[in-house]
Amino acid sequence: MKALVYVMPKAGVLDPQGKAIGQALEGLGFAGVQDVRAGKVIELDLAETDPAAARAAAEAMARRLLANTVIESFRVEIA
Amino acid sequence: MKALVYVMPKAGVLDPQGKAIGQALEGLGFAGVQDVRAGKVIELDLAETDPAAARAAAEAMARRLLANTVIESFRVEIA
Repeated sequence: MKALVYVMPKAGVLDPQGKAIGQALEGLGFAGVQDVRAGKVIELDLAETDPAAARAAAEAMARRLLANTVIESFRVEIA
Repeated sequence: MKALVYVMPKAGVLDPQGKAIGQALEGLGFAGVQDVRAGKVIELDLAETDPAAARAAAEAMARRLLANTVIESFRVEIA
């Protein structure tokens, strides 16, 4: 069972990578980019076949390792 | 208008970051993790208000800067 964990910097947290991407896009001539936030996506291939258990496992992994919950929020999607 | 660009390593491309995460999860005692792939998500806040035009712009940005299409595939979601 596939689980996707999306990790994004929380609102209000500085995101230098996003800022750099925004400036690079502007430099390349892309207009109208008001804000950019850069995050991670981690695709987990789990042996677990029960969707609820897979979600619980992925959330535990996110809290323990994948996301720094002080400055990042995460969202789990079961596919 | 918000556009989310998901960038993942293509199948068959080595993903050392994903491998490292997989080993770290195993080391923390998480069993049943068969494979891990690590990618990026870029959230763009665009001035564009037409969904089709916003998607086209985000795809152009992904091809030009956000994804290395030799080794990465991308997917755009308009929110």
